[in-house]
Amino acid sequence: MYEGAVQDLIDELGALPGIGPKSAQRIAFHLLSADKEDVLRLAHALQVVKEKVRFCDICGNIAEGEICHICQDPRRDQTIICVVEEAKDVEVIERTGSYRGLYHVLGGAIDPIRGIGPDQLRIRQLMTRLSNNEVKEIIIATDPNIEGEATATYLSRMLDTLSVPASRLALGLPVGGDLEYADEVTLGRAFEGRRIIEN
Amino acid sequence: MYEGAVQDLIDELGALPGIGPKSAQRIAFHLLSADKEDVLRLAHALQVVKEKVRFCDICGNIAEGEICHICQDPRRDQTIICVVEEAKDVEVIERTGSYRGLYHVLGGAIDPIRGIGPDQLRIRQLMTRLSNNEVKEIIIATDPNIEGEATATYLSRMLDTLSVPASRLALGLPVGGDLEYADEVTLGRAFEGRRIIEN
Repeated sequence: MYEGAVQDLIDELGALPGIGPKSAQRIAFHLLSADKEDVLRLAHALQVVKEKVRFCDICGNIAEGEICHICQDPRRDQTIICVVEEAKDVEVIERTGSYRGLYHVLGGAIDPIRGIGPDQLRIRQLMTRLSNNEVKEIIIATDPNIEGEATATYLSRMLDTLSVPASRLALGLPVGGDLEYADEVTLGRAFEGRRIIEN
Repeated sequence: MYEGAVQDLIDELGALPGIGPKSAQRIAFHLLSADKEDVLRLAHALQVVKEKVRFCDICGNIAEGEICHICQDPRRDQTIICVVEEAKDVEVIERTGSYRGLYHVLGGAIDPIRGIGPDQLRIRQLMTRLSNNEVKEIIIATDPNIEGEATATYLSRMLDTLSVPASRLALGLPVGGDLEYADEVTLGRAFEGRRIIEN
């Protein structure tokens, strides 16, 4: 154990996801030798984030107010909602520049092993949004894994009862990838989802 | 890019050693959903460390004052100094419980590729300590790699001129390890350093 303040910092850093005791120690020692200014800037960024940032009342995305900048933007297509698991997925999709609709962040995926069922996700809020709005399409963009697929299946059934058309992101080969290195499941999905070439 | 405060935090986290952009984002999102209290405790730990912690004037170890707790402790053997590269090495050795002398932290190892020569290390301070004190032995505990060995060789020559006996930590098989998995160099050193079994 180190002297008080250093050990406190190591403990706090070690509680962050993906940072083990060794990394926590390495970061703490880096911070000890770093400029005081740099370290205080990090401390300040932490405080500001907890003071200013919250989750959008409408879509659950991160926001620096009650409503996020996407929900506030009148230029976004209000008739289409893309459903994602986490707020960080919104950013990933935004970066593609190929989607101009709204979002809905579920806050996770259905995962019975971890005790996460539909009630733990923001599915009820999605249904409320749909009953109030003139939404023409829901794009389900949950992760392409077991939990994400289960969530997509559950959602598509719920949406069916409301007669809202739902789509799912295409599964297939990653662009820039190599056929040789594609796993069997992905390649199988790429065959299933093949598209006629239109000339 | 995220909205202001979140992106600021991601940038600050990403500047830490061993944390790439993806990890920084993951940690930032974890902190967004974490209890405000926990996050502020981390921010506070960062501030306290920069306010209170400094390096010991004598040995270069971390200290919450001018002199570290080891240099202050009169029960420590004042006639023996263990030379290490980094302050964190002090903690590693302390944990073994098998050393009761003092330390001297060099602040690194000789590494010409990175432009670190003897002048960039706290070697001059070590020599000053030796001229003032009645030190009977120096244990060189630099890392068992190229830079550490170079530093040990350099130090042992310097100490030779002062007629202070210097020793180097034993190299050999790690306890609890398996002979089969030892690398050739380590096994070679273990042969060189073999000890007669005394009955």
